[in-house]
Amino acid sequence: MCAASVLGDETMAGNDKLVGVIGGMGPGATVDFMSRVLAETPAEEDQQHVRMVVEHNPRIPSRQLAMRGGGENPGPVMAAMAHRLESAGADFLVMPCNVAHAWQGDIEAAISIPFVSIVEESVRSAVDCSGDNSALGLMTTPGCFTAGLYQRALAETGRPIITQTSDELTETMSLVERIKGGDRSHEVSDGLRSLADQLVGRGARVLIAACTEFPLVLSGSMFDVAFVSSTDVLARKTVALALGKE
Amino acid sequence: MCAASVLGDETMAGNDKLVGVIGGMGPGATVDFMSRVLAETPAEEDQQHVRMVVEHNPRIPSRQLAMRGGGENPGPVMAAMAHRLESAGADFLVMPCNVAHAWQGDIEAAISIPFVSIVEESVRSAVDCSGDNSALGLMTTPGCFTAGLYQRALAETGRPIITQTSDELTETMSLVERIKGGDRSHEVSDGLRSLADQLVGRGARVLIAACTEFPLVLSGSMFDVAFVSSTDVLARKTVALALGKE
Repeated sequence: MCAASVLGDETMAGNDKLVGVIGGMGPGATVDFMSRVLAETPAEEDQQHVRMVVEHNPRIPSRQLAMRGGGENPGPVMAAMAHRLESAGADFLVMPCNVAHAWQGDIEAAISIPFVSIVEESVRSAVDCSGDNSALGLMTTPGCFTAGLYQRALAETGRPIITQTSDELTETMSLVERIKGGDRSHEVSDGLRSLADQLVGRGARVLIAACTEFPLVLSGSMFDVAFVSSTDVLARKTVALALGKE
Repeated sequence: MCAASVLGDETMAGNDKLVGVIGGMGPGATVDFMSRVLAETPAEEDQQHVRMVVEHNPRIPSRQLAMRGGGENPGPVMAAMAHRLESAGADFLVMPCNVAHAWQGDIEAAISIPFVSIVEESVRSAVDCSGDNSALGLMTTPGCFTAGLYQRALAETGRPIITQTSDELTETMSLVERIKGGDRSHEVSDGLRSLADQLVGRGARVLIAACTEFPLVLSGSMFDVAFVSSTDVLARKTVALALGKE
């Protein structure tokens, strides 16, 4: 298809790769992810930056609703987006949304290029930045928790895991919905911060921010323990792969 | 092509349109444009946001160099991107880079969908937000100035035009290059601000920020005269068209 060949022939530099982004979940998180990819790229001029094809499709059916057993199945839409991104010449795909990884199987069934999991990369990063056997705290949304994506990956680490109660998950979701509605106020930030502190209070020595909306109001400087932003982890991995450093 | 049909059938809501973005010129400006599209969209949840397909291709040959008569012609790359975006189902295209509009002809020759000019929209906005016959100040880069894009559009307004000297254009470019290199310091902001003040000092009552890198360090609140950000103007127009409001 012309997408691949033209980008390849006319604009490719060295062995760099074209990144395909399954985006729009949510819109702010996708734009934040892109800005972090830029920030993680060693570049002095435009041409040194990473090439991306982004399908920013906020109309993907609600992942949270689907995990509650309602609404439309978002899997087919994600799979169709992944297929188009591969057709557009993408060398690998990323999806800056954690809960959406519950449909990773649908996506991988639709493509023949690698799909980089934000879950696997975030758990690896959490282990790398923590001391032996220090407890890992999982901060996420109800949908992502129900999917069990992180719990399964974290179990493989053999580390103690501190997770949120159902009340904490519900409170987290209400704050995430405010962020999605454009509210990035101190009230929202403080609310998520105190929820994170609950995990620290129960022994977490590493906080895994397993929702790409969190970094829109939270940053590592707010915590005394290690803060693993899944958005930042995926951005660093994306840049390394795109520039052929891995 | 599946791109159009799938996005249309599975995720389209009402009469909204799919926006095609010719991006990566520069990377920071494209991400800033997307964030302003989100900010201009009346949305409480993901699904109410605008659908975009973004080709973030920073490898497009230098527009500034091409306008100086050097380097590779970026026109064919932009035209190929535009063609792919139309094939991906875009209903109309936007390009958040002013100087790149010097190749608008190449782009329009490659597509059958509308291309929304940031130049036309910015000039219209500048006239709308200014009193009768108030002078319009043009702040831009050497490449965009050489292309004469704004000068031609501004001439049609019949308004007095205040433009930058070659020294001011050179100074502007050096600051824009610092922004592209990741420098959003007060020094860069103050430098561009004083260049804008030069235009005000020479009578400009409206400042047209005709480079999408400017809003990364400048905002209207910094000036006593009207400040027309070409990025904001294009973002507002994009949202209106995408949501079927125009």
